[in-house]
Amino acid sequence: MQTVTLIPGDGIGPEISTAVMKIFEAVKAPIRWEERNVTAIKGPGGKWMIPPDAKESMDKSKIGLKGPLKTPIAAGHPSMNLLLRKTFDLYANVRPCISIEGYKTPYADVDLVTIRENTEGEYSGIEHMIVDGVVQSIKLITENASRRIAEYAFEYARNNQRNSVTAVHKANIMRMSDGLFLRKCREVAENYKDIKFSEMYLDTVCLNMVQDPTQFDVLVMPNLYGDILSDLCAGLIGGLGVTPSGNIGTNGVAIFESVHGTAPDIAGMDLANPTALLLSAVMMLRHMGLHEYAQKIQTACFDTIRDKKVLTKDLGGNSKCSEFTAEICRRIQDLD
Amino acid sequence: MQTVTLIPGDGIGPEISTAVMKIFEAVKAPIRWEERNVTAIKGPGGKWMIPPDAKESMDKSKIGLKGPLKTPIAAGHPSMNLLLRKTFDLYANVRPCISIEGYKTPYADVDLVTIRENTEGEYSGIEHMIVDGVVQSIKLITENASRRIAEYAFEYARNNQRNSVTAVHKANIMRMSDGLFLRKCREVAENYKDIKFSEMYLDTVCLNMVQDPTQFDVLVMPNLYGDILSDLCAGLIGGLGVTPSGNIGTNGVAIFESVHGTAPDIAGMDLANPTALLLSAVMMLRHMGLHEYAQKIQTACFDTIRDKKVLTKDLGGNSKCSEFTAEICRRIQDLD
Ligand SMILES: CC(C)[C@H](C(=O)O)[C@@H](O)C(=O)O
Ligand SMILES: CC(C)[C@H](C(=O)O)[C@@H](O)C(=O)O
Repeated sequence: MQTVTLIPGDGIGPEISTAVMKIFEAVKAPIRWEERNVTAIKGPGGKWMIPPDAKESMDKSKIGLKGPLKTPIAAGHPSMNLLLRKTFDLYANVRPCISIEGYKTPYADVDLVTIRENTEGEYSGIEHMIVDGVVQSIKLITENASRRIAEYAFEYARNNQRNSVTAVHKANIMRMSDGLFLRKCREVAENYKDIKFSEMYLDTVCLNMVQDPTQFDVLVMPNLYGDILSDLCAGLIGGLGVTPSGNIGTNGVAIFESVHGTAPDIAGMDLANPTALLLSAVMMLRHMGLHEYAQKIQTACFDTIRDKKVLTKDLGGNSKCSEFTAEICRRIQDLD
Repeated sequence: MQTVTLIPGDGIGPEISTAVMKIFEAVKAPIRWEERNVTAIKGPGGKWMIPPDAKESMDKSKIGLKGPLKTPIAAGHPSMNLLLRKTFDLYANVRPCISIEGYKTPYADVDLVTIRENTEGEYSGIEHMIVDGVVQSIKLITENASRRIAEYAFEYARNNQRNSVTAVHKANIMRMSDGLFLRKCREVAENYKDIKFSEMYLDTVCLNMVQDPTQFDVLVMPNLYGDILSDLCAGLIGGLGVTPSGNIGTNGVAIFESVHGTAPDIAGMDLANPTALLLSAVMMLRHMGLHEYAQKIQTACFDTIRDKKVLTKDLGGNSKCSEFTAEICRRIQDLD
């Protein structure tokens, strides 16, 4: 039994978390859940922080599964997502975007992974007003963070039987910052001769992506570009409701999460689609080396979607969240 | 007769320029071409500059049509595109992306316009190395440039029978810089009550764009976001080979251009597709108030593409550039 910190989150968070727990039960995954609320509190010095019991749980378990979070509208309240990234130094955001059979989008056979540097770049938070009407924001690129994310990308490619890594940049414009990022990618690539390395401008990637996404494999990039491309690619396979996400940190910490919103309009109505959180949980199982359980859940989930009989509304069906969940559980039992 | 400065450009530039001139002749457009080479030279103080005769021609004619340019690989040579933007203060890049009937892409009925701030933002060119391994790039946003581009976008919407303007931003992250941009858009929107105004995060726009581009109309944004989105949207309708582009400057100057590359591999072989330059020339004619000529050329061009009989290779046909051009000319004659 391994412990996982479960952060159900807000809105539809609790019901899709329940769905995932039921499915984990059905597959008999050797996981013990430790439920925690991470909504920030004001700490000793007036600084916003994750509640200590949530922080402790994560420090101990190292692995988190997280539903959508609402950032409270309190003055100065930081984005919960940014706070979590910072607290646990979640430096790599990983999003596999793989076409789901039976769920129709304009694209087929998408099978790529975006790997986003998650700690610096345009997200430095450093901004100044130079004079009235003139503002500057600082994009910060460091050698260490660039090397770290490049290494993560190549390791990921190697460990996941992927053939190529493309560094996405605008070093033609930001010669020094994106230039540094690119240089580190090139250096790291030298150590991974088994993986093909290429470089591409962000604008060109976007253009080619919507024309033929099947040409891409693993993509690695600075923070903002990753923010954009990861959402774009999610759109190609059906949106945030079906796209899993993982955040890899230092000291072995990792948090897997659905990146859609809290959908307050349907919260508590048993209408939510748990797929994104479930597939994030599948990523988590793989990360933990529990491949067999991961595979079973994924098969049952994709079979359910391909079959089209029991689907939530956003997936084109009429079923409730609990019915969709039960169908996946049933299929898991059938697999045995 | 109005004079237009023609910058044929490099690679396939001359042949697609010839194609456009032939078509303008067929439609009897009241245009006199003044051909100029803009490839930068080193000026008095060692500064790179546009050759004086090209600068003078543009200053006089105010209107330019430009093919693809190769930036020479000389040490310190600036990007020709950036140099032109700077020389003529081309502050607005305008790209209408409209689905072309008969030219199949994963999307139908795309009909939107991206309007990109073209002078500042991430393109400030200001970068520093703080300490070894730590680099910062500065994104500069000013009140004036933001107001100017917002005003351009709303004027464009009004003059082109468009209903809505969406400001694209990441003010949740770059609160001051994108915040300033957004504030100016909101202020300007107040003066255009006939145009619907909305705001959207860049990542959300990308996601929604690939899921359903028909929901968008006019989009206005800072420089880098425009670089990305304009290429993404071009991809939706078939790529840079069929997407026109216009750069609007101060003092009435405007340069219309194809934004694809110079395609050196097929240069001089009569194989190039002149559509992007031709549609840019159509934008130019509209900008000059010569709507009747614009409409005729556009109709003949789109009819030729829809008809599928005489197409260049990249459009799926077997015809030469000159044959495609002749077919458009023939259809123009038939229109009379
Ligand atoms: C919520 C916001 C801070 C965030 C970002 O811009 O990174 C979001 O878009 C994401 O991708 O997680
Ligand atoms: C050539 C380059 C400077 C340019 C840019 O990044 O703006 C290009 O991508 C464009 O969109 O014109």
